[in-house]
Amino acid sequence: MSEPRRPRGRPGPADPTDRRAALLQAARSQFAAKGFAGASLRSIAAEAGVDASLVSHYFGDKQQLLVASLELPVDPLAKLRGVLAGDLEDMGERLVLTFLSSWDPHRAAFATLVRSALDRGDPASAPVLQVAREVVTTSLEERIEGPDAGLRAALIASGVIGLGVMRYVALLEPLASASAPQVALLHGPALQALMDR
Amino acid sequence: MSEPRRPRGRPGPADPTDRRAALLQAARSQFAAKGFAGASLRSIAAEAGVDASLVSHYFGDKQQLLVASLELPVDPLAKLRGVLAGDLEDMGERLVLTFLSSWDPHRAAFATLVRSALDRGDPASAPVLQVAREVVTTSLEERIEGPDAGLRAALIASGVIGLGVMRYVALLEPLASASAPQVALLHGPALQALMDR
Repeated sequence: MSEPRRPRGRPGPADPTDRRAALLQAARSQFAAKGFAGASLRSIAAEAGVDASLVSHYFGDKQQLLVASLELPVDPLAKLRGVLAGDLEDMGERLVLTFLSSWDPHRAAFATLVRSALDRGDPASAPVLQVAREVVTTSLEERIEGPDAGLRAALIASGVIGLGVMRYVALLEPLASASAPQVALLHGPALQALMDR
Repeated sequence: MSEPRRPRGRPGPADPTDRRAALLQAARSQFAAKGFAGASLRSIAAEAGVDASLVSHYFGDKQQLLVASLELPVDPLAKLRGVLAGDLEDMGERLVLTFLSSWDPHRAAFATLVRSALDRGDPASAPVLQVAREVVTTSLEERIEGPDAGLRAALIASGVIGLGVMRYVALLEPLASASAPQVALLHGPALQALMDR
C-alpha cells in the first residue's frame, strides 16, 4: 500500500472523517449506477474530491470499499477471508457456522437487505448482490480447485445466501429454529461436495 | 375415495365448474387466514357451500388442494412425487434437473412468487411458503431416512428454492446463465449429501 498523499489542487473535504464519509457516499452512488466493474477507485475518489491513494489508505481494496459502503452489521469479506484461510477439507461446515453465527444476531437486517435487493427491476445491480457476486463468489472461486470453479463457487454462494433467505426471511421450519451448530453439521457436507472436485 | 355426494339442504353452486372455483377461492382464503394446519377440508367446503366429499373428488388430498389454489404454472407436488418415486441414490441430481427444467420457462412467475412471499410482515403464512413447508419439506422428510430427517428435508427444500431465488430473482452469474443439466450435475451431489445418512 502506497503512502497516502494530500489532495492537490482540487477542492475536497480536509477532515479525515469527512473524507471517509465523502468516499463512502461516492462509492454507494457509483457502485449502484455503474456496477462493481464499471466504478473505478479513481472515479469514486474524483467524485468525492479526495486523492485516489486515500481510498486504499482508508478502506483497502475495491472489494473492501464496496462492503464498507453498505455499512452492514457484519463484514462478509473479513468473515469469508477468515474461513478461506483455513483448511479446505472442513471448509463447508466452517462456512455455514461462520455465516450463521455472524447473522443470527442480525436476522432483521438480513431480511431487510434481501427484500431491498430482490424488490427491484434490475436485482443484479443491487449493491448487496454485487457483494454476493464480486466478493463472495469471486473469493470462493479463487480458493477452490478443479473444473467449473466459477459455477461451483456461485452454487456455494447460493447455498449459503439461500440458507439465510429461508432461515431469516421465509422462516422455513425447522430450519429457522434449529441451532447454528446443528445446521452447520448437516449442511456443511453439502457445500463441501461443491468444493471437492 | 368415496363417491361424491350431492350437497344436501345447503345452498351452493350447482355447476361443477362453479363448485370447483368456489372451493379454490375458499381454499385460498382459509389457507391464507388459518395456515395449512388450521384450515380443514370440511371448513373450506362449508365456506364454498359444497359437500366436503367433493374436495377429494376434484382435487385429491389437502396438499393438492393447497397447490391447486395457487394456480401455479408448474405443479410442484406432481413433479416432486415423480422425483421421489425414483431411486434415492441419484435423487439429488434428478431433483435439481426437474426443478430447473420446470421453472426455467417460468422465470418471471417464480420471481413474482418469491417477491410476494418475502415482502410481507408474516412471510411464513404466505401460501407459496406453505407449499415449501407442507408439501416440499414434508414429502422429502417422508422419503429420506436416518436421523434429523426433518431438518435435512428443510435444508434440501432450502437448497432447491434458494437455487431458484439466486438463478431467477437475484440473477447471480454464472448460475443464472448456466444450462440446467450442468447445474444439476454440479449441485445434485450437494443435495445428495443431505439425503444419504
